[in-house]
Amino acid sequence: MGTPRDDREEKTPAPSTTLSPSAEFPPLSAGDLAALGRLGRQWRLNDRVRALPVDPGVSEVRRPTDTTGAGTGPPGPFQPEHPGYLAATAGAERGDTPPGRAAGRLRRLLLGPPLASAAVLRERMPKLVALPVLSSDLLSSVAYGPEAMLTVLLLAGSGALGLSLPIAAALVVLMVTVGVSYRQTVYAYPHGAGSYLVASDSIGPRAGLAAAAGLILDYILTVSVSVAAGVAAVTSALPTLTPLAVPLALAVIGLLLAGNLRGVRVAGNVFAAPTYLFLAAVVGLVAVGLGQAAARGFTPVAPAPTPAVQGLSLLLVLRAFASGATSMTGIEAVSNAVPVFRPTEWRNARTVLTWMVGILVVLFVGLTLLIHLNGLVPRRDETLLSQLAHRTFPHGPWYPLIQVATALVLLFAANTAFNDLPRLLYFMARDSYVPRRFLHMGDRLAFSNGLVTLAACAALIVVAFGGHTQSLIPLYAVGVFLAFTLSQAGMVNHWRRHRGAGWRRRACLNGVGALLSAVVLLTAAVTKFAEGAWLVVLAVPLLVWLFLRVRRHYDRVRDALSPQAAVLAHPPRAGVAADPAAVLPQQVRHLFVVPVVRLNQAALRTLAYVGSLGQPTLAVHVSPEEQEARRFHDQWDAWGNHIPLETILSPHRVTVAPLARYVRALRRGRPDVTVTVVVPEVVVEHPWQRVLHHRTERRLRRAVRRVPGIVVTNMPTHLPR
Amino acid sequence: MGTPRDDREEKTPAPSTTLSPSAEFPPLSAGDLAALGRLGRQWRLNDRVRALPVDPGVSEVRRPTDTTGAGTGPPGPFQPEHPGYLAATAGAERGDTPPGRAAGRLRRLLLGPPLASAAVLRERMPKLVALPVLSSDLLSSVAYGPEAMLTVLLLAGSGALGLSLPIAAALVVLMVTVGVSYRQTVYAYPHGAGSYLVASDSIGPRAGLAAAAGLILDYILTVSVSVAAGVAAVTSALPTLTPLAVPLALAVIGLLLAGNLRGVRVAGNVFAAPTYLFLAAVVGLVAVGLGQAAARGFTPVAPAPTPAVQGLSLLLVLRAFASGATSMTGIEAVSNAVPVFRPTEWRNARTVLTWMVGILVVLFVGLTLLIHLNGLVPRRDETLLSQLAHRTFPHGPWYPLIQVATALVLLFAANTAFNDLPRLLYFMARDSYVPRRFLHMGDRLAFSNGLVTLAACAALIVVAFGGHTQSLIPLYAVGVFLAFTLSQAGMVNHWRRHRGAGWRRRACLNGVGALLSAVVLLTAAVTKFAEGAWLVVLAVPLLVWLFLRVRRHYDRVRDALSPQAAVLAHPPRAGVAADPAAVLPQQVRHLFVVPVVRLNQAALRTLAYVGSLGQPTLAVHVSPEEQEARRFHDQWDAWGNHIPLETILSPHRVTVAPLARYVRALRRGRPDVTVTVVVPEVVVEHPWQRVLHHRTERRLRRAVRRVPGIVVTNMPTHLPR
Repeated sequence: MGTPRDDREEKTPAPSTTLSPSAEFPPLSAGDLAALGRLGRQWRLNDRVRALPVDPGVSEVRRPTDTTGAGTGPPGPFQPEHPGYLAATAGAERGDTPPGRAAGRLRRLLLGPPLASAAVLRERMPKLVALPVLSSDLLSSVAYGPEAMLTVLLLAGSGALGLSLPIAAALVVLMVTVGVSYRQTVYAYPHGAGSYLVASDSIGPRAGLAAAAGLILDYILTVSVSVAAGVAAVTSALPTLTPLAVPLALAVIGLLLAGNLRGVRVAGNVFAAPTYLFLAAVVGLVAVGLGQAAARGFTPVAPAPTPAVQGLSLLLVLRAFASGATSMTGIEAVSNAVPVFRPTEWRNARTVLTWMVGILVVLFVGLTLLIHLNGLVPRRDETLLSQLAHRTFPHGPWYPLIQVATALVLLFAANTAFNDLPRLLYFMARDSYVPRRFLHMGDRLAFSNGLVTLAACAALIVVAFGGHTQSLIPLYAVGVFLAFTLSQAGMVNHWRRHRGAGWRRRACLNGVGALLSAVVLLTAAVTKFAEGAWLVVLAVPLLVWLFLRVRRHYDRVRDALSPQAAVLAHPPRAGVAADPAAVLPQQVRHLFVVPVVRLNQAALRTLAYVGSLGQPTLAVHVSPEEQEARRFHDQWDAWGNHIPLETILSPHRVTVAPLARYVRALRRGRPDVTVTVVVPEVVVEHPWQRVLHHRTERRLRRAVRRVPGIVVTNMPTHLPR
Repeated sequence: MGTPRDDREEKTPAPSTTLSPSAEFPPLSAGDLAALGRLGRQWRLNDRVRALPVDPGVSEVRRPTDTTGAGTGPPGPFQPEHPGYLAATAGAERGDTPPGRAAGRLRRLLLGPPLASAAVLRERMPKLVALPVLSSDLLSSVAYGPEAMLTVLLLAGSGALGLSLPIAAALVVLMVTVGVSYRQTVYAYPHGAGSYLVASDSIGPRAGLAAAAGLILDYILTVSVSVAAGVAAVTSALPTLTPLAVPLALAVIGLLLAGNLRGVRVAGNVFAAPTYLFLAAVVGLVAVGLGQAAARGFTPVAPAPTPAVQGLSLLLVLRAFASGATSMTGIEAVSNAVPVFRPTEWRNARTVLTWMVGILVVLFVGLTLLIHLNGLVPRRDETLLSQLAHRTFPHGPWYPLIQVATALVLLFAANTAFNDLPRLLYFMARDSYVPRRFLHMGDRLAFSNGLVTLAACAALIVVAFGGHTQSLIPLYAVGVFLAFTLSQAGMVNHWRRHRGAGWRRRACLNGVGALLSAVVLLTAAVTKFAEGAWLVVLAVPLLVWLFLRVRRHYDRVRDALSPQAAVLAHPPRAGVAADPAAVLPQQVRHLFVVPVVRLNQAALRTLAYVGSLGQPTLAVHVSPEEQEARRFHDQWDAWGNHIPLETILSPHRVTVAPLARYVRALRRGRPDVTVTVVVPEVVVEHPWQRVLHHRTERRLRRAVRRVPGIVVTNMPTHLPR
């Protein structure tokens, strides 16, 4: 037997990436199990406790209305499994009231029938399917990345737009470096691991939490930005819809939420079509555009002259660079998802990652070049991609096709966040850094709590920023590159620790990736600080602090409630007065208190219920006036004065406060006694009738909730129908 | 022994108008007392129940921190009165936590120290004090009544304004008739009685409820209209404040609410000053104005020509008449308040009523005449009274004086509603027509619930109508004259029933009053239907229907819970299986159910608590997967398997629904068993930590609340500090 804390460290071995509904029920440590045994050996109960008046297998009541016998009716809500085990059927989840059942049916209709845990999808994807599934987030970024870069440059006037080419070249270096760096992550974590797990594992919990905070902001912003950009692709084509941009974006977020609550695992080929369509469309756009430019001898069209609003400075160039870097968001998707590949998983994953980065570079460079050659300038009412498509395909079906493909791929990119954020929250909840309810898989196997949280935050941001993509971008780069930096710095540590073959080269590659990411991170944080990045710069440490507070709370609860703590705190000795935190039945002393307002059936039933337990019982009557108190005493005597009665005269006509104070006073007199207050209450049929009755029990419970050793309950009395 | 309903009729003898905090505790009927005795004689308890482990007088614990002895410390929260009686001191109402105590101190600061019930004010007023106190509502009405009339006439163009004189003459007849009629009410109900009591008593409950509904609307509108008119008096003098009219009105309502929650009985002389000031100001205004007119030879100034927007019709004239009749609101105040007069109460009350009506007629006629002679026309931005004061006193302090007096007297008029509506709700709650919480006197002896309801409704109306008095007037007349009509029709019935000396003459006078009131009522309802009176016409029957539903609910509860019903429904026979509604302890069969998620101290304490009661107990574990369930069983066995355990496998990972269903199934198998579910729960220190824990008990309780015989409670476990 060690101290109660000796087994905490066992909790985080190598990070596991499998999802299990049992994660809500963490196992007990060996020390706790031993303590349980010690406590159990001292447990004394009388035999009546095991003499159940019912069959716990509820077999005879499974079909109470079927009086014809023969057991041919529909199965009951519970099916026997083994002795002591019952399996709940869907019937056991059904509501008991007509409105409850109607709500259940509506839910089924919207979200589909519930799914068993065994249905957790463990689909394996060939590379050509994995590519579109995992790249929609990354590739869709080119729909807004170049535009973000040019918008910054335009601040220095249209003359500065020519700088887009060297900046794009620098970004290509960044993309390749980060891509190579992530190839190593895939190799090192063949079971898949996002930045949170890598940084936690290789640097430490705080680094992991910082990466997680960055990623959480990133995912929320991915939804906001992608949905806003997708809506912008639509409104660029149909300008009449422009005033509806915000409601449209909210509707799309709602649809994504509903789809993901339904637990729709969008099958690979559903993803494949629009992503390949987008790819084909943009590649076609680039090819045709370059052909047209070649016909003009690659002479750039001079952009429409725009006056400078600020001077061209290194700061501005860096800002443009950081904005353009948002084209890389989503590059980490493959490293999260290694297990979905066919064996050898890490090898296939690396291949797909290489393809993705290659395509990204081609699209990004091609689009930036074309925009330059055509002299296009960012406009508030039409995206650059839309302008380019209009210019390149003035007629024919190509323009709408490109816009539809863009909108679709952005939608799928937003969907990626709906897949990934709840998983991240799950891993964090498993480590007790966020509320444990994020561990819960809904009846459609979706992490409903995480999904709803994500949709709510994204919707809030869309509304707050009026649905305008560009203004969200400053918020974006900081979170993304924080996660990139920490994850790759983690990899450097990983190699240093494991020192396999060629670890220096690997560490070096990841180090360069980390360094470049850090440069972008700092650039973004500094240059865009005033524009909104300060929000993220503030939010990350705040979130980390919050995560740590949550963890501390859970740790305190676990330590305080551990059976070992019970053994240490209350060495059970015979003959010693019991304790408020008694964990053995023979230590518990009872006092029941029944507040009685009038001697009606509700009160009589409560008194009978409590009296039948055979424990010391005290009735309390709170009265505003002596005259009323006397009258009540007369009633009490007429009934036979079976239970001791104490009357509290409350001259200021307050009821609950003196009652709570009295109960606390009783308990203070004998801290070894557990006081149970049972309040008679009437159960009304309709919610509106609740205003007609006092809700004493609720208020009393609130008034005494900070005092240990007081149990408050109500004894419900139902009106006959 | 009669049926359980045999004593219902005893409840409404002659209406009592005294207010008592004991009204919340209606006495038991003789039948119920006898039934109590019968039930009590069959009550069997074991002796432990009376063996209390504590002193219910809490004497030894009164000052737990005072270890120096000698008992010289401050008194404890409870003082012994007689054996079995404790008196709660203010200390017993104090919160237990620092924020609770701070809230209590803030409350004391704002509302003052609590008042004992004996402080209910039973002040007697001399006539010269009663006059201003009771007449502020009535006399203040002349600040908006003539204007309301002229606003309607102006619709037919400025030429129609001359009709104001004949209409005013008709209104004077109405005022005198209604005044005489109310003189009779004062005589017939010397203990004071509002329209609700008179109509209930003399016609029947539904008539009383209709009058009450009208009065409730009237009181709410009095606050809205008076406050809006008071603010208009201020903004007429200080036009820069006009855009702030609504916030100003809301602030005034808030102040009135706070003052009345404080229970400030504004002493007579506080009322006297501004009412007499207003009286003097308006009488002065009329006198000086008539003097000026006499100097012009009483030649009316032609009003500024205003084009007609509709033709002059009988309907329009009737509408103007009904609008002008709002000048009479408040005329019923004396009949409510007869007991506040010095003896002989009814005689003094009649005298004051006569004075009031006389003053009303003088002011109303004088103002209408002066407005006509000066050719004034209602304007949106300045009240007629303000225009008149400006015209009559172009210089000097008179104009602001009149405006201030008007604003003050309107404020006091609104305050009248704050006095009267909660009283009306009290009388209705005593008859079970509105929620019983309106019976409750707050710790400042104010009917806090009624006050808050009134302020909230009035504020809502002010906001909805943008604070514009004139648009509220159509809503006003209908409710007032409905109450007048019913109350006076009730008087006719009263005389017919009692047939004292001269009853025919009296009935005749009241009949004329009722008839004229009914004419105004119908006129107002018909002519102003489209303008908003339809709201009141709809609201009155709706309210009456609501009152009757509330009454029916309370009646059902009382009948169902009456001890007599228990005797009838469950004749206790020895050896017969017990009943879900068992009212004798020997009939109660227990089953305790403890849902256990993990075997930590919270669960162990709950199991110990329940086990120590020595009643049949079943532990239930809901698990998402067989694997987790097996692991839990192993823990259970390690502990010693002291209590039967049933495991429910919930393949869809739902927890509360199958648990609720299981408990219901257990109970359905043995309807004679009371199932008590005790849920282990952790009590967190800060509210934000609640999101970190499941609130299973709350959800479970909601899921089973419709099933009788199931008690759900939580066993709180506090974290050590």
